[in-house]
Amino acid sequence: MADRHERALEAARRLGADAVLAANVSTVTWLTGFEAAVSAGPSPWAHTPLALLPQGGPRVLIVAEDDAEAATSLGCELVTYPGYGIGRLDPVGHVARVLTALVDGRTVATEPGSLPAVLATDLSFVDATAELGRARAVKDPDELGRIRAAVRVADAGQRAVRECVRPGRTELEVWAEVRAAMEAEVGGPVSTVVADLVCHPGLERFEGPPTDRALAEGHLLITDLAPRRAGYWADSCSTISIGEATASARKMHAVVRGRLERAIDAVRPGVVAGDLDALVREGLNYPHHSGHGIGTTYHEEPRIVPGWPTALEPGMVMALEPGLYGEGEGVRLEWVVVVTPEGSDVLSAHDLSL
Amino acid sequence: MADRHERALEAARRLGADAVLAANVSTVTWLTGFEAAVSAGPSPWAHTPLALLPQGGPRVLIVAEDDAEAATSLGCELVTYPGYGIGRLDPVGHVARVLTALVDGRTVATEPGSLPAVLATDLSFVDATAELGRARAVKDPDELGRIRAAVRVADAGQRAVRECVRPGRTELEVWAEVRAAMEAEVGGPVSTVVADLVCHPGLERFEGPPTDRALAEGHLLITDLAPRRAGYWADSCSTISIGEATASARKMHAVVRGRLERAIDAVRPGVVAGDLDALVREGLNYPHHSGHGIGTTYHEEPRIVPGWPTALEPGMVMALEPGLYGEGEGVRLEWVVVVTPEGSDVLSAHDLSL
Repeated sequence: MADRHERALEAARRLGADAVLAANVSTVTWLTGFEAAVSAGPSPWAHTPLALLPQGGPRVLIVAEDDAEAATSLGCELVTYPGYGIGRLDPVGHVARVLTALVDGRTVATEPGSLPAVLATDLSFVDATAELGRARAVKDPDELGRIRAAVRVADAGQRAVRECVRPGRTELEVWAEVRAAMEAEVGGPVSTVVADLVCHPGLERFEGPPTDRALAEGHLLITDLAPRRAGYWADSCSTISIGEATASARKMHAVVRGRLERAIDAVRPGVVAGDLDALVREGLNYPHHSGHGIGTTYHEEPRIVPGWPTALEPGMVMALEPGLYGEGEGVRLEWVVVVTPEGSDVLSAHDLSL
Repeated sequence: MADRHERALEAARRLGADAVLAANVSTVTWLTGFEAAVSAGPSPWAHTPLALLPQGGPRVLIVAEDDAEAATSLGCELVTYPGYGIGRLDPVGHVARVLTALVDGRTVATEPGSLPAVLATDLSFVDATAELGRARAVKDPDELGRIRAAVRVADAGQRAVRECVRPGRTELEVWAEVRAAMEAEVGGPVSTVVADLVCHPGLERFEGPPTDRALAEGHLLITDLAPRRAGYWADSCSTISIGEATASARKMHAVVRGRLERAIDAVRPGVVAGDLDALVREGLNYPHHSGHGIGTTYHEEPRIVPGWPTALEPGMVMALEPGLYGEGEGVRLEWVVVVTPEGSDVLSAHDLSL
């Protein structure tokens, strides 16, 4: 199969464009490997990075000078502009000038839901958002390596949950240890992470950030960890009983675990996402997807939701996560799998037991 | 003085527009009080929030349905669109339809460096980025309350540094305790934070994320913490000697502390930012600003940099942060102050001692 740069250019050609201009940070990471900082919101020093991929030419990454060092080993041509400093700040103006020169009158296939209006004014462009989203679903070998590395971060976090839960500790205290374990795995901060950490019973919610609510005997703790590492996301979920599990919790856990196994057994090339969803969801009524692709975003193609038409292909990576909730208890379990020519490989290594 | 909504509308009128359309998340927070989630990057479920402020009409906040509950108490009219779900996702399409109806042919004063091209296509707009940036510099009383609350988070983090530093601990281990202390102050995750945590000597860098480098006797630890709380940022910096401080460290610390005091003494209405910078920087050569405004971003007007023309006004809030670096040692100290009619009030309460 064509690699992702070839697929992106094919998408551009189908749309009558001469180049791809990636504007969504996730698409920039996908095409260049550059991990854009996002966790503090928009930067006063820099515009979000952009990537230009022309037919026949080298990929070009547009970043502030501050990011040049981190970007040198990516194999892209770098175009930089002044970043952090004590003079006047005009990152958007800098990028506009650079971009006009680089595009040089070509029609670009871009993401106008991410490209700012001020950069689009003099640009001839077509909307390639949907095509690029589909092209991102199948992962190249180097991307699989990055996802595996991100999954190891989630594994480390999930391991830490089991080591540190006990009655009396708050969700926030557990979260602090979980994040520290993920940061130890990475050797640096894990600032870009989506995490649910909620304990039952008595809660309506099956997701949400940690609070100062304390764990107690008989509670179920749902920990859903999606960390990003080197631009690629993992995802994971466990449900742990604090102390002895109730009979109803054991029963719910067995059902959900069975559904996750059913999902993994069913994954193979050609299976339609909506059919996989129906198989996993049968008779249950969890109010969320049965799974979703992961890559440079935490939710992308293939979406495992009712009626979804995407057919699985080798190289697609999904987090599968059936759940069961009711009467103040809840169970959700999630592992990451990659579609192989024969079926699937499980990338996650974390313990799913109750 | 006119409140921020009146100032924003004045800016729009000066530019010939009938309404303000805030597109930068920071400007949306400023006009509505809504704290947009940013730390995980773009959401698959929602566009970043937008705010429309028409002449004479109520403020309107455009968010996904998931955010409606958090936004109900803000005193804005809410316009929502479908968010998280298991059906087709089209947040940008939803927002485009909503926005067209709301704007209803008016010319809007907006931020085209933040507004996506796809939303600007059928919009009559003028660029108000610079005017809105200036209007944000003076804080209303409710904003000062939020900044004070954010400063308490930074204070808690700085207190934790002093309590947990000791030889043998790594920067990352200290960081985990610091963040846990900030999260205890907030009662929830502090996911939007800019933090430097670096120890010397031997390091060229005076900023950067924590690593697995271990603290040792004689090291200096620079901890720069800028957490966001309820949409508003604080900032803070301390420099702590691990064990007995060297003579050179004590000397550098005394110089920097003197410069911070000089800065605070000099702050009053009418002082020009560039003059304040010159006063603080005199004879030192730190490669960064002497200070900067904070609010719904972590670096905004007034910027305390060489030659900057902004004259201070009551209600402006600044983080002042002189530094001194050399020979593998570095000291930086930072407190937040608000300009008052007579001079300034210090909002920070953290210990500045070495």
